[in-house]
Amino acid sequence: MRNFDEHTITQAVIASLSATTNPRIRQISESLVRHLHDFVREIEPTQAEWAQAIEFLTAAGHITDHKRQEFILLSDTLGVSMLVDAINHRLPDGATETTVLGPFYVQNPPEFPNGANISAGTDGEPLLVTGSVRDTHGNGLAGAVIDVWHSDEDGYYDVQHTEAEGPNMRARLRARDDGSFSFWTTMPAAYPIPHDGPVGKMLELQGRHPYRPGHVHFMIGHGGFETLVTHVFVEGDPYLDSDVVFGVKDSLISRFEHLPAGPAPDGTVQERPCRHLNYDFVLAPAKT
Amino acid sequence: MRNFDEHTITQAVIASLSATTNPRIRQISESLVRHLHDFVREIEPTQAEWAQAIEFLTAAGHITDHKRQEFILLSDTLGVSMLVDAINHRLPDGATETTVLGPFYVQNPPEFPNGANISAGTDGEPLLVTGSVRDTHGNGLAGAVIDVWHSDEDGYYDVQHTEAEGPNMRARLRARDDGSFSFWTTMPAAYPIPHDGPVGKMLELQGRHPYRPGHVHFMIGHGGFETLVTHVFVEGDPYLDSDVVFGVKDSLISRFEHLPAGPAPDGTVQERPCRHLNYDFVLAPAKT
Repeated sequence: MRNFDEHTITQAVIASLSATTNPRIRQISESLVRHLHDFVREIEPTQAEWAQAIEFLTAAGHITDHKRQEFILLSDTLGVSMLVDAINHRLPDGATETTVLGPFYVQNPPEFPNGANISAGTDGEPLLVTGSVRDTHGNGLAGAVIDVWHSDEDGYYDVQHTEAEGPNMRARLRARDDGSFSFWTTMPAAYPIPHDGPVGKMLELQGRHPYRPGHVHFMIGHGGFETLVTHVFVEGDPYLDSDVVFGVKDSLISRFEHLPAGPAPDGTVQERPCRHLNYDFVLAPAKT
Repeated sequence: MRNFDEHTITQAVIASLSATTNPRIRQISESLVRHLHDFVREIEPTQAEWAQAIEFLTAAGHITDHKRQEFILLSDTLGVSMLVDAINHRLPDGATETTVLGPFYVQNPPEFPNGANISAGTDGEPLLVTGSVRDTHGNGLAGAVIDVWHSDEDGYYDVQHTEAEGPNMRARLRARDDGSFSFWTTMPAAYPIPHDGPVGKMLELQGRHPYRPGHVHFMIGHGGFETLVTHVFVEGDPYLDSDVVFGVKDSLISRFEHLPAGPAPDGTVQERPCRHLNYDFVLAPAKT
């Protein structure tokens, strides 16, 4: 194996993979080499451009720590995360559509009963969220585990605040016997993804803003069903058509209705105006 | 821009690049998105595999520092560095072929006169290197700047030794009026690229060894000519046909002749047996 030119080197690298024992690793490695080489042959980078690519990846690695994941941001902003999501969620008709997990999910959020306020002490417009978890036949899924998380009115998640005061605007609830659930929180806001690193620089050079439209995240699991990872987006948000991570689907946009002070749909009486989101989630059967 | 599926998302991401002002950045971004998405569609990664890819890149970033560059190793071992090299060096007939720079070049090496020993104090078989620097018409290039660097007999470069004793086995020489040069050093050895990080793990999973055949690096510059970055490989090295970075070309393999003690080709008298490499380098005219 010698004397490779810009055309023969691809086959040479693929030939070097012939001793790969795991067939999946061999498949991924071969495909990566073919597509990566095709990309390089197409753009014909100068040595200086190649060095800039190495520097970009290095900077992304160096800014990444346990609270910041620049490679996920890169995957998100290049549409790769949503592509992987789509490939892994070819769902039956009627099942709720999926979107990206995002970088702000925290394992095992605090448990709350239905009706609780999960953002106590947070400034912002009060928001009542009601809904249900059902199968594709419309049956309520009693006990379904509902993880919810969202930003504050300034667009920040609890984990982005350096003065850590513990979890806020995130909770685990369980669906009632009829599949319904409800909780109080505050309105989320549109926000920019962290853009003070290499991905932010990339977006700037590409003439793109770093914003995501306001949304509430849901992860809903129940035995025998695919775990649903999705958002519900705020109808009317100005960024719905230019979400920097390409995550918006019409079926996931919902009205966050304005309600006057007084009786609320959950039977409580509110002293100030509030908002109300109602969304019915439908889980797909587990793949066998 | 909403409701993307696994087929429409690629065009959506490309459409988001329409405000890119720099045409080269737009071209590279679009090509990257197309090839990256094609790769993902071809391998259909699970969410777990996608997360492993993120972890791999993160680990590569975290092991990279001013002395270790894992992303260059990744580019080298996937054949990308040699591909970029080939694209950037479509040379006229007769010009010396190029190969990768590698991670061990140090700017502004110490200057030595012709005939000097550039590895004084290093254990190893003495090696006399003689040769010339010429244009494609055979004219010697007086004053051409010749940077040279190589490993010790154990396969390590000076910068890999933690007890830094200053530069060793690296030098800058200048061609004599007739284009010739000569220096003494020690024989280089085959060596593994650093393989205690994610790239080493990748090679292991791909059933590949991490070795490069023994070689001496040269970077040769002269006004009006393309700077030549290349190696001369040791004839007979067992890794010539499986160089982990795909850098070997027949024209760059040379005999490192065994000489008995006694008079050497440079007019000196040696007390012990030594080796002798003679190589004539030919520079291509600068691109206009």
